[in-house]
Amino acid sequence: MNAPPPTLDDIRRAHARIAPHIHRTPVLTSALLDRETGARLFFKCENFQKAGAFKSRGACNAVFAMTDAEAHRGVATHSSGNHAAALARAAALRGIAAHIVMPNNSSKPKQQAVAGYGGRIVLCEPTLEARERTCRIVMETTGAALVHPYNDNRIIAGQGTAALELLEEVPELDIVMTPVGGGGLLSGTALATKALRPAARVFGAEPLQADDAAESKKAGRIVTKPANTIADGLRTMLGERTFPVIRDHVDEIVTVTEAGIADAMRRLWEIVKIVVEPSGAVPFAAVRENPHLFAGQRVGIILSGGNVDLDELPWVKK
Amino acid sequence: MNAPPPTLDDIRRAHARIAPHIHRTPVLTSALLDRETGARLFFKCENFQKAGAFKSRGACNAVFAMTDAEAHRGVATHSSGNHAAALARAAALRGIAAHIVMPNNSSKPKQQAVAGYGGRIVLCEPTLEARERTCRIVMETTGAALVHPYNDNRIIAGQGTAALELLEEVPELDIVMTPVGGGGLLSGTALATKALRPAARVFGAEPLQADDAAESKKAGRIVTKPANTIADGLRTMLGERTFPVIRDHVDEIVTVTEAGIADAMRRLWEIVKIVVEPSGAVPFAAVRENPHLFAGQRVGIILSGGNVDLDELPWVKK
Repeated sequence: MNAPPPTLDDIRRAHARIAPHIHRTPVLTSALLDRETGARLFFKCENFQKAGAFKSRGACNAVFAMTDAEAHRGVATHSSGNHAAALARAAALRGIAAHIVMPNNSSKPKQQAVAGYGGRIVLCEPTLEARERTCRIVMETTGAALVHPYNDNRIIAGQGTAALELLEEVPELDIVMTPVGGGGLLSGTALATKALRPAARVFGAEPLQADDAAESKKAGRIVTKPANTIADGLRTMLGERTFPVIRDHVDEIVTVTEAGIADAMRRLWEIVKIVVEPSGAVPFAAVRENPHLFAGQRVGIILSGGNVDLDELPWVKK
Repeated sequence: MNAPPPTLDDIRRAHARIAPHIHRTPVLTSALLDRETGARLFFKCENFQKAGAFKSRGACNAVFAMTDAEAHRGVATHSSGNHAAALARAAALRGIAAHIVMPNNSSKPKQQAVAGYGGRIVLCEPTLEARERTCRIVMETTGAALVHPYNDNRIIAGQGTAALELLEEVPELDIVMTPVGGGGLLSGTALATKALRPAARVFGAEPLQADDAAESKKAGRIVTKPANTIADGLRTMLGERTFPVIRDHVDEIVTVTEAGIADAMRRLWEIVKIVVEPSGAVPFAAVRENPHLFAGQRVGIILSGGNVDLDELPWVKK
């Protein structure tokens, strides 16, 4: 039997625990984008978060929730993305080791981010099997505890704190929407939102070319399928802790095209003047591609991250 | 005889006048950039300002300071940049006409911005002579009043309100720095800063390839020279109202290389996750290229604007 999902109290405790270590990120609005979409949009800017993404919330919560006895042997994870850097940073703040298993094809900027926070990088072959096996070996040899990127209640509660802040600042939202990859952010957001404002609907947004969450919700079980999208943070599948929350507490999964993601990202850069990564632009793409779902609604959108390789912009032809 | 420059009271009055029409922009910091530069940097984000630049401050002040009798005949200016859009927007807010003379080679996005705010665009040949002549004709035929981009005390007082807000939020600055093109922002900033915090030094930053302000300060008179820089907002020369203020109240003009501007801009995008135009990145380039001037200092930097053509990024080779 799995433990039940985090409660609002768990999310509030997470927020108090991580508050010294994260930014309370601003909520931005744009009169022009409101006119263009017919909705009222409130962008919670987790692209400004420490280490450049909401992942710092969950990582800090997991690391600072550990007892000293657990913590002193360090933490481990396998990730090539924002969770890797966020966990390395959280571990450094607590003064413990972070062992980060990364595929040997992960980009230099991503490896530099982890190394910059003092994480110990262990490279492996770029397959899920190799990542999991390497991570197990690292844990066995070091005694480090796994901090999974999303399939972990401490992570889900931590990610839920972004919605907590958003609803404190803008209580009267009709819809709260996040991107969905592994589902940590979406499930934390759904738990926080449905507890604080039951009338609000919670939407997940994902690429049509990585629509495993939409398929899973339809099928009533975790569906895995190939993902091929520029939204590199959303290529992962749901986990057994995130899926039931999404099944029970998320109202809808909206899918978007690749061109829509690139256009939405560019529009945020041009108009809001902020750097948002492709994954972070997916909910705004959902608004632009499905105006009928959002017209006249007050929509809170969590812009999940801002870690972009500026040499790889989707609108730049090579 | 010229009128004396604006006083702190003029700047405060400007601030009260424009407050309903502009954003109070945030001040951002970055622990990483502080470590990299050895300074403590406070970025006043005028890239988030209405119409994407500090120019909305001066334009709103000029437009809302007019009497109804003056205002009803409209305003005119010649500008291909941020002042054009800002003036069109300010005029629309007051419900009056804005005639914007633009060179016929100005970019589509810039023309769209002016048109989007309801400005009436009058195209002319891309020479200063043609711009001034066309603007005179427009003024004679319409009765519109000139709102010069910088050589105007109402504009200087309006631009000074950014420093007013910055010093309210971060009073203990050692240095306040802005880019310098025509000198409206720098002279307004100098007047506000020297009145509010006489101990602080005021620096202007400009491209080495458009170093007319540095040359003018050295020569004790307005020097004009060819400008060739990616910082397109800084290609203008000082005016007879801005030069004396810069001569008397600015401590130093720091010049930077073109490569330094592109690198500084990219670093702000990557680390602070904000979109800043080349001109806006010039003061940060000055810090990076002259660490000895800024080490250990608390430096307030006005990031002047965020209007960038995302198809023309300096680090993207074509």
